[in-house]
Amino acid sequence: MADHDQDRIRSIQRSCTRFLRGHGPMPPAELLAALPDPIEPDSYGTGGVVAELEREVAAVLGKAGAVFLPSGTMAQQIALRVHSDRSGRRTVVLHPTSHPVLHEDGAAQRLHGLHLRPVGDSRRLLELADLEAVAELPAALLLELPQRELGGLLPDWDELGAQLSWAARRGAATHLDGARLWECTPHYQRSPAEICAGFDTVYVSFYKGLGGISGCCLAGEHDIIAEAREWRQRHGGTLFALWPYAASALAALRTRLPRMPDYLAHARAVAEALAGLDGVEVAPDPPVVPMLHLYLRGSPQTLREIALRRAQETGIWTWAGVAATDLPGRGVVELTVGDATMGFAPEEVREVIAGLLRG
Amino acid sequence: MADHDQDRIRSIQRSCTRFLRGHGPMPPAELLAALPDPIEPDSYGTGGVVAELEREVAAVLGKAGAVFLPSGTMAQQIALRVHSDRSGRRTVVLHPTSHPVLHEDGAAQRLHGLHLRPVGDSRRLLELADLEAVAELPAALLLELPQRELGGLLPDWDELGAQLSWAARRGAATHLDGARLWECTPHYQRSPAEICAGFDTVYVSFYKGLGGISGCCLAGEHDIIAEAREWRQRHGGTLFALWPYAASALAALRTRLPRMPDYLAHARAVAEALAGLDGVEVAPDPPVVPMLHLYLRGSPQTLREIALRRAQETGIWTWAGVAATDLPGRGVVELTVGDATMGFAPEEVREVIAGLLRG
Repeated sequence: MADHDQDRIRSIQRSCTRFLRGHGPMPPAELLAALPDPIEPDSYGTGGVVAELEREVAAVLGKAGAVFLPSGTMAQQIALRVHSDRSGRRTVVLHPTSHPVLHEDGAAQRLHGLHLRPVGDSRRLLELADLEAVAELPAALLLELPQRELGGLLPDWDELGAQLSWAARRGAATHLDGARLWECTPHYQRSPAEICAGFDTVYVSFYKGLGGISGCCLAGEHDIIAEAREWRQRHGGTLFALWPYAASALAALRTRLPRMPDYLAHARAVAEALAGLDGVEVAPDPPVVPMLHLYLRGSPQTLREIALRRAQETGIWTWAGVAATDLPGRGVVELTVGDATMGFAPEEVREVIAGLLRG
Repeated sequence: MADHDQDRIRSIQRSCTRFLRGHGPMPPAELLAALPDPIEPDSYGTGGVVAELEREVAAVLGKAGAVFLPSGTMAQQIALRVHSDRSGRRTVVLHPTSHPVLHEDGAAQRLHGLHLRPVGDSRRLLELADLEAVAELPAALLLELPQRELGGLLPDWDELGAQLSWAARRGAATHLDGARLWECTPHYQRSPAEICAGFDTVYVSFYKGLGGISGCCLAGEHDIIAEAREWRQRHGGTLFALWPYAASALAALRTRLPRMPDYLAHARAVAEALAGLDGVEVAPDPPVVPMLHLYLRGSPQTLREIALRRAQETGIWTWAGVAATDLPGRGVVELTVGDATMGFAPEEVREVIAGLLRG
């Protein structure tokens, strides 16, 4: 994208007064104002608000310990490396759309010598049969709950249990990519701790659904977390001061985790309101977490230009990017439901989407 | 150290009203208050205040480009990895007290397959003869200016040039660990850009002498910096939001870089004031950067307890840790001169140190 196009987009976004997705743009001043006061600082990731967050997250996830890290990319590589070193195995079995496969440019291989083995089909959830087709004994099975690239899909609870049992039978560790774990609880009607119970290690993020500045935690048994702390240092993640992220994460966790049921209810109401609208298909329908993928009639490029023009006309920011799909003349967008979305009644969301489709 | 001892130290430190070293304790509220307002956020390390900082640092260091990273541990591994990949060599020649040797737990080896080869003597600066004893062709020569573990020592300008020429003759890249580079300029009477000119890559820190929250930059030619950005992502350092650190770094750079000559003048005046005091030796004397190592008569354990008791009596915080030395009955402490130290006249520093020696 050319620089002037970036500038145009930024300028239109700035002129908007309402935002359809997530928690809206969250300017620094707003994020800083939400920090607890006073903040007890850490020293190289030890003590203070970092330790407080780690204790709280471990308790919420039902794990013995947790360590704060700057990013999920770092956290998950470290978890997988620890499982690999403990088993003497190098293969990680995971879905083709998992974050390490799509978004980390081979880091687990290049930095840790791990072999990522995607199994199953990128257009559907992993199934037990996909795992049973794997002959080698992997170091770990990585599962993502909910699965972002599939619009937040979740496996049935029993299917999840069967996949975890498969890993146990193979002597493989189980790791949960819980970047959006907080969003799962209303669908499963289970607490985060119940969902995490079957996993050896769990990564959770603080900036996506929760709306913190950045950062994440890795949780598990004490010995694994202690080993992860050593790797955090080697990765360059044990910063002199981690308190800005940890303080923001703690505030976000306490504010927004209780709102997840409301976000999901709203996502379902939005999906219902969109049901009769020609030119849009919702997936999954009904939503299982506060996230919808909307398949829109129109070319991605045309839809994008309409969205930018509508933003200028209405002051409502929707999308600056519409992804291509397998079907010609159909684009797809992700609608994450957060504080900003809650300001739109389902009928108003329908109106906004209808506006994009009208052109 | 037992937890209750940590608590005791923290409680004594909190009760203090003046601080001898550096910029003092820098509580979060103070660091946050120093941030520019408004802050233009980045998106995954791109744009906003991060780009502004990168441009400013590249200009100050006289390099084509710079990339912001969360930590020096990450930045230096990445620089060395890029040099290694470009030359097809794996060995890095460096001083035995350099950061990768002492403080990174073999990360460059474990994550990047690099071989660290310490040369020279840990008690003195690297010399050309040390380098000439190396037969293999290394990927890179890493030099630290000034050398922290040696009390901030700097090689003569001509000696530095000779060492860089050695690397050039071997086809080795040159990397500068400039964690405290800002402190060098008054001694060399040269700008940061002049000091950096002989190096292919330069790492500079924002939280040590400059007093930012955390983070650093790596600077060099555009192609190297572009490659470093790829590695930043793989390391897990391309966070969703880097603006808290970058904004703090920019404020700190603009505020404190111009103060370095004053800090050095003060360090020299302190060294002079300590000259006649029995039981203390200053190294180096005179200081070459705003940092002094003080060798104090007394066992490290006794000196530590005296320092804590004096802190309670006087409200002046000095040290909670005194390191052992080769000489029995002699401890060593580091006195970094910053904003807090500037509040003590040299004679008062002498009084504080004399108090520790009296017991």
